[in-house]
Amino acid sequence: MGHPTDSTCIFCKIAADQIPCTKVYEDDAVLAFLDIGPLVRGHTLVIPKGHYATVMETPPEVLAEIAKRLPGLSKAVLAATGAKACHVLVNSGAEAMQSVHHLHFHILPRKGGDTFRIPWNAGKLDSVEGTALAAAIKGQMGC
Amino acid sequence: MGHPTDSTCIFCKIAADQIPCTKVYEDDAVLAFLDIGPLVRGHTLVIPKGHYATVMETPPEVLAEIAKRLPGLSKAVLAATGAKACHVLVNSGAEAMQSVHHLHFHILPRKGGDTFRIPWNAGKLDSVEGTALAAAIKGQMGC
Repeated sequence: MGHPTDSTCIFCKIAADQIPCTKVYEDDAVLAFLDIGPLVRGHTLVIPKGHYATVMETPPEVLAEIAKRLPGLSKAVLAATGAKACHVLVNSGAEAMQSVHHLHFHILPRKGGDTFRIPWNAGKLDSVEGTALAAAIKGQMGC
Repeated sequence: MGHPTDSTCIFCKIAADQIPCTKVYEDDAVLAFLDIGPLVRGHTLVIPKGHYATVMETPPEVLAEIAKRLPGLSKAVLAATGAKACHVLVNSGAEAMQSVHHLHFHILPRKGGDTFRIPWNAGKLDSVEGTALAAAIKGQMGC
């Protein structure tokens, strides 16, 4: 297999077929299944088979493999649910509401008239503070 | 360049340096900059230079290139903002609150005590309905 695993992780157990799931798609690198606690009908999780906690800790190539499956998976979820749009969401870290610490992409199909809402209380970027913050981020990127 | 572009798209204009942005990172395929309407401090957008509207319509390889940059970008945003966690969010389609119809990944750093919340009113997956829905999604995937 070659994947890192965590024997205490529920998603590793699902990926190893030790715990059942409502599977939607599977290949060597990726597994997709319906969330048992859906926010909307068709709420689907896409996970790497290897155990990585967050986006920050996942090897770029593993994230790339998941990303490659997103167009096909999202189109299939939308077609099956009759939705026209979706959110793709990754919660990375406890402060970002990550409950299972095995990387997972949420596909959340959206329709007009549904009740799920992400509050969008946009502020206004201050140009001076923004320039300083961008410089700090660039510094962290080493560029 | 070889990228598809849309002359009416504000993000295409930003990618072509025709409109300024508070740039955080750039390479041949990807551009990252601070959102002018931040939900949280450090709210960063990551876009492909080519014009694709949604996850559903973006070539898998283009999504993979963005995904490969996410670990480095998210770590840099977190380090610069002192956050420990983040959401990575793509709104795909008007019903999913997409306002600029050029694919963009939001990196939303999160800290304990901040005020941004995604409401998480989880339902319960019905096993019979879930099995039928998973079969419908699989059917759309052609597997």
